[in-house]
Amino acid sequence: MKKPSSKGLSRRQLLQMGLTTAAAGVLTGGFELAFPVPAQEQGQDPLPSWNDGAAKHSILNFVRVTTDSSSSKFVPPEQRIATFDQDGTLWVEHPMYTQVVYCLERVPTVVKAKPELANVEPFKTVMSGNREAIGKLSMDDLMKILAATLTGMDVDDFEAEVKQWLGTARHPRWKRPYNELTYQPMIEVLTYLRSNGYKTYIVTGGGQDFVRVYSETVYGIPPEQVVGTAGGTSFGYDKNGRPILTKEPKLLLNDNNAGKPEGIHLMIGRRPYAAFGNSIGDRQMEEYTRAGDGERLAMMVLHDDANREYAYGPAQGLPDTKVGAFTQALYDEAKSKGWIIITMKNDWKRVFAFEQ
Amino acid sequence: MKKPSSKGLSRRQLLQMGLTTAAAGVLTGGFELAFPVPAQEQGQDPLPSWNDGAAKHSILNFVRVTTDSSSSKFVPPEQRIATFDQDGTLWVEHPMYTQVVYCLERVPTVVKAKPELANVEPFKTVMSGNREAIGKLSMDDLMKILAATLTGMDVDDFEAEVKQWLGTARHPRWKRPYNELTYQPMIEVLTYLRSNGYKTYIVTGGGQDFVRVYSETVYGIPPEQVVGTAGGTSFGYDKNGRPILTKEPKLLLNDNNAGKPEGIHLMIGRRPYAAFGNSIGDRQMEEYTRAGDGERLAMMVLHDDANREYAYGPAQGLPDTKVGAFTQALYDEAKSKGWIIITMKNDWKRVFAFEQ
Repeated sequence: MKKPSSKGLSRRQLLQMGLTTAAAGVLTGGFELAFPVPAQEQGQDPLPSWNDGAAKHSILNFVRVTTDSSSSKFVPPEQRIATFDQDGTLWVEHPMYTQVVYCLERVPTVVKAKPELANVEPFKTVMSGNREAIGKLSMDDLMKILAATLTGMDVDDFEAEVKQWLGTARHPRWKRPYNELTYQPMIEVLTYLRSNGYKTYIVTGGGQDFVRVYSETVYGIPPEQVVGTAGGTSFGYDKNGRPILTKEPKLLLNDNNAGKPEGIHLMIGRRPYAAFGNSIGDRQMEEYTRAGDGERLAMMVLHDDANREYAYGPAQGLPDTKVGAFTQALYDEAKSKGWIIITMKNDWKRVFAFEQ
Repeated sequence: MKKPSSKGLSRRQLLQMGLTTAAAGVLTGGFELAFPVPAQEQGQDPLPSWNDGAAKHSILNFVRVTTDSSSSKFVPPEQRIATFDQDGTLWVEHPMYTQVVYCLERVPTVVKAKPELANVEPFKTVMSGNREAIGKLSMDDLMKILAATLTGMDVDDFEAEVKQWLGTARHPRWKRPYNELTYQPMIEVLTYLRSNGYKTYIVTGGGQDFVRVYSETVYGIPPEQVVGTAGGTSFGYDKNGRPILTKEPKLLLNDNNAGKPEGIHLMIGRRPYAAFGNSIGDRQMEEYTRAGDGERLAMMVLHDDANREYAYGPAQGLPDTKVGAFTQALYDEAKSKGWIIITMKNDWKRVFAFEQ
């Protein structure tokens, strides 16, 4: 194996090549990193898409102190639980939650099966294709669309439909499949935590059955580690006597706000050691996580990068939006309680895997 | 290391010593086993507390064909899910479900905190200590006792209380802690499945929060792999502003009968490849499991051993009982659909670990 020459390489390149912080310091003139990479991570940067800074340092430090058996903050492997909101935390949520796009695009199929809906609101508006009118649908209207497109079918049929849709649907801005619009820095955090014994969970306000369809291929998170807003199912038999589960329009868990810690208790039964979110819907999950003993990491993604992704939320002096509100009050709570803000603009070297 | 002489040893002893089926056959005169141990298991019997027979063979065969990558019935590791009912399947359920014993024994503490209950039924009867009267309490009465003893407290306090109780409570017949009354053959099945990549779940009609307290130490099953009857919690803050979850008397999931496959879908999101039960409450779980593609194992424990444990259920011509009913109709369905009956009397070499 030929050793690469260090001549002409940047400090970052040296670190990426696996040289220690100290060695890199010598070779680049002794400049001290503000946030040195912890010893155990010096071999290879587990978070290469992150810029050096408080956010990256917090993640590395959290893993170091909770997995070092000589640390007073050591966490036994079976207790290592980390929870992640999805929309706006793991992938793009603008201009519309992916699942809502799915529901709107399913409406023609539903209307084809039940033609009487064609002249009934809100289906009539959706069928008109008038984007402006669709954008103005009320929450009640959206709930009707969700009920019509997410319930009434066999759970296996639903899974097959979502899988098929994801294969063809494209995001309006990037013209790419939604699963390519995951945040590469967060994928690295998921992988890094798992390689250190953490069980990673999605805890989403989105539909549990929807996210479970692709969680394993997109995030490496198996369906049983997806907690989301969940409707009931009913067990029964089809005309051939085969047992089936049918999705019912009955809400079991609204996995938003207080519903997040409640859902975590229901589905996991352990308090997380780390939680990642980006909106007021994640507030209680962050509070619950931080209230545990020992080292607990609470992080919030701030969307402040209109060029590479989007900028929204009053904490940036930017207009609030329908989705993913990161309010000033929440920003202040985060700051006062020691939660870590991830600024997309400053902390992320790149946002998507397809960027160079 | 001294090699033991094979002289005078039984075929079983030879197999237990790690000799292959063929070698044991030669040493014992070529007698053919009715259910030969699969090749991969010949090194060491993974189910030493099981007698040779259809039940043991079914388990060994199931694992062989679903984990052999050259088999047409191979199951990818991430899909290997096995579900187990608890009461009567993994541990003793007679003369009363352990959790019901807990609730009854908690009544004095509840009455101490709320003295006005002392003269209110059904608490008055429980406080009287009259076993016969307690045994005649109606389901409505029991529900009142369950609500009073299982809800209204912080989830962490509940966990601590159950843990403490389990340390001192004893079964009336064996005078041993309840966690010693697990069925050793079933513990071996759990371990064997896990060592072959199966994720083992408890799917119990009992309280999810209750079983989660001890599932890891007693069965090696982490809390997040316990699906049970679940009440809601409510997120809030204590007087010091600390976030807490309080157990509420609101039923989210009745994990019995149709509730078992519904609970499996809610909490796991995958259909099991193997399911183990012992009563009518497990019927739909077994049907749902068997309805999947490929090799699916459905097993039912039949309590037909009054000497070592209990004998109950009409399938044995024995009187039906309040708990764990294994009806004749269910027995017939099991037989007609290829579910495997485990007879405690014939299939289990020993019932408990403390037996010789």
